[in-house]
Amino acid sequence: MDEFKLIERFFAPLGGARKDVTQGIGDDGAIVSSPSRELVLAVDTLVEGCHFPAHAPPRELGFRVAAVNLSDLAAMAATPCFATLALTLPSADELWLTEFSSGLGEGLARHNCALVGGDTTRGPLTISLQLIGALQGAPLLRSGACAGDHVLVSGTLGDARAALDLLSDGGQSTDHETYLLARYWRPTPRVELAHAVSQLAHAAIDISDGLLADLGHIAAASGVAIQIDQELLPISPALVEHCPRAQALAYAVTGGDDYELALCVAPAQLSAVLHAARQCGDALTVIGQVVGGQGVTCRDADGLPVKNPDVSGYRHFR
Amino acid sequence: MDEFKLIERFFAPLGGARKDVTQGIGDDGAIVSSPSRELVLAVDTLVEGCHFPAHAPPRELGFRVAAVNLSDLAAMAATPCFATLALTLPSADELWLTEFSSGLGEGLARHNCALVGGDTTRGPLTISLQLIGALQGAPLLRSGACAGDHVLVSGTLGDARAALDLLSDGGQSTDHETYLLARYWRPTPRVELAHAVSQLAHAAIDISDGLLADLGHIAAASGVAIQIDQELLPISPALVEHCPRAQALAYAVTGGDDYELALCVAPAQLSAVLHAARQCGDALTVIGQVVGGQGVTCRDADGLPVKNPDVSGYRHFR
Repeated sequence: MDEFKLIERFFAPLGGARKDVTQGIGDDGAIVSSPSRELVLAVDTLVEGCHFPAHAPPRELGFRVAAVNLSDLAAMAATPCFATLALTLPSADELWLTEFSSGLGEGLARHNCALVGGDTTRGPLTISLQLIGALQGAPLLRSGACAGDHVLVSGTLGDARAALDLLSDGGQSTDHETYLLARYWRPTPRVELAHAVSQLAHAAIDISDGLLADLGHIAAASGVAIQIDQELLPISPALVEHCPRAQALAYAVTGGDDYELALCVAPAQLSAVLHAARQCGDALTVIGQVVGGQGVTCRDADGLPVKNPDVSGYRHFR
Repeated sequence: MDEFKLIERFFAPLGGARKDVTQGIGDDGAIVSSPSRELVLAVDTLVEGCHFPAHAPPRELGFRVAAVNLSDLAAMAATPCFATLALTLPSADELWLTEFSSGLGEGLARHNCALVGGDTTRGPLTISLQLIGALQGAPLLRSGACAGDHVLVSGTLGDARAALDLLSDGGQSTDHETYLLARYWRPTPRVELAHAVSQLAHAAIDISDGLLADLGHIAAASGVAIQIDQELLPISPALVEHCPRAQALAYAVTGGDDYELALCVAPAQLSAVLHAARQCGDALTVIGQVVGGQGVTCRDADGLPVKNPDVSGYRHFR
């Protein structure tokens, strides 16, 4: 099975049924009708051994590739439309491809996102997905936070970091372990939530590198400081089961890989934002506030600064 | 230098000066204004040791990454607008990054294409560029060829294949060797030519896998056969110098990596197409014709079929 047959068999079926795809997989490029005047472009790469463990379950991996990229579009308040896949893999393993493409297709289809093109090459396993989304109203940027804003976060934090313990230990035996692994492999891109609050929130980012690191991007882009109250962080029952509270909090603060949405919202809009989240079925928790200054700090229950071992998040090449 | 400083220093400057880029590098995604109603999306990946030799000169590599992707847009008759870069590299070598980003920027700037986003990760050197182009008129597809059409090709063929000999031999000493290496590292995407003939030609493809292989894609997509006259193939003086004529012809027919444009043109449009090419300063040569049937054949000076060792072109996973 060469690359052309492989694409035809495993990836062409992920083209979906969008009417705005004029030419999908199979020419030098794809042709689509522009879904809006303003477009959002995002790309994320996952490298084996760096972003996910070697011999990862391919269906889960495919879903995760879609989800982490969709999360970037969500953080801009864009509606996902089209995807292209740059897939480099060491061999054309049919079972692997069946599972991977199935997971990828499931992740994309949940948001009506059509795979319209790509490039399949041979080499060390590296998966890069490019997404194009439509922007209907104003975008959510990192740069709009104002002193006085509340800081909110969707879902729960730290689960994906805890899952890494399980992945390296090689096991899942209890319900809470199954839950944590699902949080790692199948993060929930908060696309609807972002859309619902896009006219209400000042700034947004998705939490991929760790809460403090990603809030640091908002603080830097907005020229403000952010204070987090550690005791307010939403922690799942599964994470409580998994480890002592101090570790759970550390995971929540610096863990990354959660792909939850962090929002900065003016006090006057807080109730509207919380209402919108409830309508979407998403939990949204106030965890801190935006103040003057720069940087991100985290306070404990007594209001004292928490010393975190590493607030800068994951960085390649550090 | 971590990934964020690296992006800021080497890639943010490649954002260009397009007014339709609202948000470039630095948020969860880029925001651009849609440049036309119909968009063309293309992505191409280059893997070290597969698509280019290890320790390739980084400036040349950067230019080539841009050119091979721009060539895909050209083959659709799209005007390049925006690019995103998924770059996986083993280490943050500043000299390498300076050279690579410079070559990439040069290649993109020649076609007013702005780098608006990307993802930089650590791993085996893998470079994936995604392009978005605007379609002003009808696209050039692989599927429009008709029996009776002339088959034309831009520039000369086989040069890039000859350059691979030099790359593996490790040398350039004569002018013709320098020329051949430049043809490999700095292919010319025929963007203006494609635009000029887009309303005149029936079908197009860019020659990346080899002339016969890529014409095979047109033949299959159009439901026709294509006959090439080997004696008509445009061969550069440098390739004539490089090797015996039989080898030069074999390189031209199956070599790949030339990124020239192959076109299928009705006889009634031939003079208009040749005139348009002259206006663009591009050579365009008639090399064969479209006939009924299927597949691609190559004839020698006596009209007899040439037995080619491999007409299927480069394929991963074969």
